[in-house]
Amino acid sequence: MSEDRSYLYGDGLFETVRVDAGVRWLSRHVGRLTASGQALGFPTSVIDQACAALEALESATPGIWRVTMSRPGEGMDWGGQGGVSVRCRLFSPALPPKLGLMAGFYLPDDMLRHHKSTSYLGYVEARRRARLEGFDDALLLSAGGLVGEATAANVIVVLSGRAVTPPVRGIVAGVTRAGLIELAATHGEAIEERAILRAELEHADEIVLVSAGVGAMSAASLCGRALGSVWGERAANWLAEVARR
Amino acid sequence: MSEDRSYLYGDGLFETVRVDAGVRWLSRHVGRLTASGQALGFPTSVIDQACAALEALESATPGIWRVTMSRPGEGMDWGGQGGVSVRCRLFSPALPPKLGLMAGFYLPDDMLRHHKSTSYLGYVEARRRARLEGFDDALLLSAGGLVGEATAANVIVVLSGRAVTPPVRGIVAGVTRAGLIELAATHGEAIEERAILRAELEHADEIVLVSAGVGAMSAASLCGRALGSVWGERAANWLAEVARR
Repeated sequence: MSEDRSYLYGDGLFETVRVDAGVRWLSRHVGRLTASGQALGFPTSVIDQACAALEALESATPGIWRVTMSRPGEGMDWGGQGGVSVRCRLFSPALPPKLGLMAGFYLPDDMLRHHKSTSYLGYVEARRRARLEGFDDALLLSAGGLVGEATAANVIVVLSGRAVTPPVRGIVAGVTRAGLIELAATHGEAIEERAILRAELEHADEIVLVSAGVGAMSAASLCGRALGSVWGERAANWLAEVARR
Repeated sequence: MSEDRSYLYGDGLFETVRVDAGVRWLSRHVGRLTASGQALGFPTSVIDQACAALEALESATPGIWRVTMSRPGEGMDWGGQGGVSVRCRLFSPALPPKLGLMAGFYLPDDMLRHHKSTSYLGYVEARRRARLEGFDDALLLSAGGLVGEATAANVIVVLSGRAVTPPVRGIVAGVTRAGLIELAATHGEAIEERAILRAELEHADEIVLVSAGVGAMSAASLCGRALGSVWGERAANWLAEVARR
């Protein structure tokens, strides 16, 4: 372990998928891992190995599966052979989370944050602080007051019945986020991608967490103010109709 | 390995020291690791274990030693027992590096970057890109044009014979940086802490990399322009006088 570059430097990428009679949008997960691996200069051999591990999940037992790929450290001061690991845990439906706000943890200028990398401490710490304050999760805000994402999910904010979501700038380029934007359009309801200000949250009808793990789930509350769940339930129904393979 | 939170999430901290008949400023390294571990909510038991491993390096064989501490994952979805690992490699004196510039990799608003955490991908990627461009290392700049640090060292910029260094805001709080600022003052030569603009680099006499591994070393060049080494050599001499224990 102590030689692995993901352990030493967070120099790895991962994908998390839910297996339940197949995997929704599996090819998109494979595509993201490939694109990020190539962008960061991972060797083709380890990318191929990770993608094969992802593809094999199509017929895996139900649960939440995670594939992690670490960079081979050849020629570097520290760093082992790199490689791929696969883990599974049971899926247990979560309750709608109580959200807090964490200012400063969303960094719009971070050019690497759209990659789902193992350099994940910012999310870990934001969630830890939210829990210390009695929340389940946090909505991350920039120092300048922009809304980013939650600690393990993208977010869709419903304002006066209209769904909006921050553009992919300094946030994880979520597979479920991208798929849901397309799905919503086919249902005649566009999700607008635009910057969202903290002040707008005061009037939000609903905040929907979006990830491969939870699908689409409306948060119970934001900083103690109860939120609705109509849009989130509709989105969850759309997702349920997507063919899993 | 696949259960360790430093591997999964970059949820770890590390210290790198040079052992050579003792360790310079060992107690400062212990202090930084303790302070960062406490700030991030690591359990006391693992902090104590890591500090004991660091203290033991006082009598270790010469080389570059690294102590890595990962967070125990109790009660979390993924994540193993946490713990401490210690590694060593031979010290080999590096040649003065040719520096490039990497814009956007310095994030002044990152509230966690002063911790020496294993979520280190930004530095890894900046160095990789610098090497693709034919440089050895990179000076990281913010999107707004501020100078931050190098990929594994703080920097001191010498402008018209005066040494300046960026404040600890979105950069690693280097032990050698802090010690050198104090040392310079005792030699009657203050190092000014202030924001440094990219444009000022065009007139820099010298750019000195500062870390526990290299001590103080003047870069050979910046974007192909040769740089001096007078200040760096003086700083290296000051460092050589510091008692190792």
